[in-house]
Amino acid sequence: MSKVHIYTVNVQFGDCDPAGIVFFPNFNRWMDEASQAFFLACGVPRWRELTQATGIIGTPLLEIHTRFQKPATYGETLQIHTTVEAWAAKTFTHRHRVQRGDELLCEGTEVRAFCIRDPANPERIKAIPVPEDILGLCS
Amino acid sequence: MSKVHIYTVNVQFGDCDPAGIVFFPNFNRWMDEASQAFFLACGVPRWRELTQATGIIGTPLLEIHTRFQKPATYGETLQIHTTVEAWAAKTFTHRHRVQRGDELLCEGTEVRAFCIRDPANPERIKAIPVPEDILGLCS
Amino acid sequence: MSKVHIYTVNVQFGDCDPAGIVFFPNFNRWMDEASQAFFLACGVPRWRELTQATGIIGTPLLEIHTRFQKPATYGETLQIHTTVEAWAAKTFTHRHRVQRGDELLCEGTEVRAFCIRDPANPERIKAIPVPEDILGLCS
Amino acid sequence: MSKVHIYTVNVQFGDCDPAGIVFFPNFNRWMDEASQAFFLACGVPRWRELTQATGIIGTPLLEIHTRFQKPATYGETLQIHTTVEAWAAKTFTHRHRVQRGDELLCEGTEVRAFCIRDPANPERIKAIPVPEDILGLCS
Repeated sequence: MSKVHIYTVNVQFGDCDPAGIVFFPNFNRWMDEASQAFFLACGVPRWRELTQATGIIGTPLLEIHTRFQKPATYGETLQIHTTVEAWAAKTFTHRHRVQRGDELLCEGTEVRAFCIRDPANPERIKAIPVPEDILGLCS
Repeated sequence: MSKVHIYTVNVQFGDCDPAGIVFFPNFNRWMDEASQAFFLACGVPRWRELTQATGIIGTPLLEIHTRFQKPATYGETLQIHTTVEAWAAKTFTHRHRVQRGDELLCEGTEVRAFCIRDPANPERIKAIPVPEDILGLCS
Repeated sequence: MSKVHIYTVNVQFGDCDPAGIVFFPNFNRWMDEASQAFFLACGVPRWRELTQATGIIGTPLLEIHTRFQKPATYGETLQIHTTVEAWAAKTFTHRHRVQRGDELLCEGTEVRAFCIRDPANPERIKAIPVPEDILGLCS
Repeated sequence: MSKVHIYTVNVQFGDCDPAGIVFFPNFNRWMDEASQAFFLACGVPRWRELTQATGIIGTPLLEIHTRFQKPATYGETLQIHTTVEAWAAKTFTHRHRVQRGDELLCEGTEVRAFCIRDPANPERIKAIPVPEDILGLCS
């Protein structure tokens, strides 16, 4: 079983569009924040420290699938329930359930990989196997 | 066959994160811009005019599935190739292929619906059948 | 003397640019959030309710002057200390001091006005005198 | 006399807030883009190349003063007229006039400095004298 971390978002006026509802890329931004809050809560250092210690620059997204069920608007407080659903050799799958109390607003499934700069070409990044110690911290 | 519209993005410094690559929610923002550019190119009025004429507030997302294959960085020019893959009774499916010249960077599939404010509760929005005239303009 | 409200910001990875520091327009976004948090803490309803009750759509900025003294980065917690420095007939002056604990990072002075849609042309907005009841709540 | 560069912005739906007008931090984002477009048009390399060649990470803001005269909304095309008003020993002053055709919407005055990472502490950045060659290119 994965740990579950709950990340709180207070929706702001500037997060909403002329229709008065959250402009959807903000949900993806919050899921990214929730992902990092998850690892931090598990005891994984921030990317900055990790880069210095291991070369890992973060966990870029390979794939994201988001279903939107209900809109949200400013003044509301949302909770993002984040887990790791599956660990593969070089990737892992996050699930983020964005709720307003008991109500599910949207759900995102992300496939991410721990990445380093490609030693052969520092302009590029490449995935590495999920580090054992990080796996241990998050399981 | 759907029309194809190509929307150009000049990636900016502020679109990139400390890893030096585009912060991914910006890809979703650009796909939203590409969707609106597609309808405009087909002759559909902007949401503002459409709201006044028909009550339609836009085409909120129901679902989006994005696969990231290669990162992008500032100074690069990207092209988003947007089509409507399928029209259903109350939804339609957009495909956005984000390219850097011939190279595919990421691909997004969106399910969207034309929505109006719910007459029973203007705080809520509801999907309506895809308007015939819009269908005609975009096919 | 004005009330002082402290608004907390947890700086995120995605708020930072390739130089690794907060991309500065985010400071302005946070000051806008701090402004709304100030009014809410004083007992002023959210813009949504205010629009319905009074036609006021918010407090658009007329002018903002920001001095940046030190950068911030992700993982840091900032406090924005917000006051109203002066009330004029149709405008007011906000001061936002963005601190990291005791350290001043940047300081913003905003001139804003309470605005309604122009009855003669709803596409336009116009400033109104600061409402007496709001003045009372915030002083 | 400074060179003048004109940077074009197509205002998007997602750039606007529930009042239907541009959320103001986006004006600051666009001024940052206009600043970089100015230097590029003058022949200064992008920050990425400059970092490798000279250690310069960009031109962080020290101060910005923006006056908003008229709002803008999505579907509009804006032109940002950017100049350098003054060069000082370690700073320079940008002026950005955001216009919609002949109409002035807002005006920003920025004080910026060319910065490098502090050799004594790479976590910090420090201003350096404006490089002679850059001064030559932009005058």
